[in-house]
Amino acid sequence: MGGLNLLPTVERAIRLFSRFPGFGRKSAQRLVYHFLRQQKDEIGQLITVLEDLKRQVRPCMICFNLAESDKCVICADPSRDTEILCVVEEPQDLQAIESTHLFKGLYHVLGGHLSPLDNVGPEELHLAQLEHRLKNNSFRELILATNPTIEGDATAHYVAQLAQPWVKIMTRLGLGLPMGGELEYVDESTLYQALAGRRHYI
Amino acid sequence: MGGLNLLPTVERAIRLFSRFPGFGRKSAQRLVYHFLRQQKDEIGQLITVLEDLKRQVRPCMICFNLAESDKCVICADPSRDTEILCVVEEPQDLQAIESTHLFKGLYHVLGGHLSPLDNVGPEELHLAQLEHRLKNNSFRELILATNPTIEGDATAHYVAQLAQPWVKIMTRLGLGLPMGGELEYVDESTLYQALAGRRHYI
Repeated sequence: MGGLNLLPTVERAIRLFSRFPGFGRKSAQRLVYHFLRQQKDEIGQLITVLEDLKRQVRPCMICFNLAESDKCVICADPSRDTEILCVVEEPQDLQAIESTHLFKGLYHVLGGHLSPLDNVGPEELHLAQLEHRLKNNSFRELILATNPTIEGDATAHYVAQLAQPWVKIMTRLGLGLPMGGELEYVDESTLYQALAGRRHYI
Repeated sequence: MGGLNLLPTVERAIRLFSRFPGFGRKSAQRLVYHFLRQQKDEIGQLITVLEDLKRQVRPCMICFNLAESDKCVICADPSRDTEILCVVEEPQDLQAIESTHLFKGLYHVLGGHLSPLDNVGPEELHLAQLEHRLKNNSFRELILATNPTIEGDATAHYVAQLAQPWVKIMTRLGLGLPMGGELEYVDESTLYQALAGRRHYI
């Protein structure tokens, strides 16, 4: 379809949406036309929601989780175990761990992973702030919960080096078959990890 | 992941995005977190673009194409052939036809198709305005360019009945194999149409 004869406003909106993750020109177009079709003020609702995100959401001063005030709900919660710290890449990883209801400690959100190809070095992550926290608190355990990917592993390694003077116990999330997964369909490196990390059954 | 411990602002944004076409909760979440990650003011850019859409884009008074003033660029273009009218369902269909550079007439955008199951009857489409145009202009040909679907066919049929007193020639877009398509993969009703509508080769 191209940008032929499209209104400049519409073309600009489509271009902007095209840059979002998971979007191509066609899906961007579909969404923009969807907005323009609505009788109800869906664009208005979206603007309000985006303005709220922009205005009210900021990083937690302590752990860089998303927050609506200086401290996020977790750092502000006195019932959390302040001696165990879980390091994650992104706020959504923190959310995923919270959804297990198993972990009651604190978090540190790095804001990504080391990736030299994308020009993400240690300075681009919240590592200085992590070091500061490690120095000024006493954590008995550090969970390195970065993703089980090349970059996540490299980042975990870097964090472990950095934390080594201050923390005795460092752990990494278990690897293996996903629940409900089938051996037949699981990739070989996951199966390798599941086999290497097999546990006593009785 | 659920809405567990999510900031209300973030949860609201995710809920709103989840309702968009092609979105589920996961993709909505991904997009919202993407916005929150950006250093550059991507949310701000998006708000501006949406405000422009909301403020500047409206339906053309004549044909219901998208416009930035009373008349769309096509209705305002004196070089168009005013004796041939192409009826489409949506503005994006008009764009698709424009991209062929073959059609130089005018359009009428219905704003959808007849769909009793979704409570879309004739009143919900721009049919009264179409009748008004047919009465007050003399079109030598009406192209019924609604989609080749059950609903599009029904809508074309309805439009044809409505236009019958005023227009001599009514046409419908050709059906057949899509260019670059392969017989092996084409559905049988398309192949049926291609066969039934076969043309002399020499």
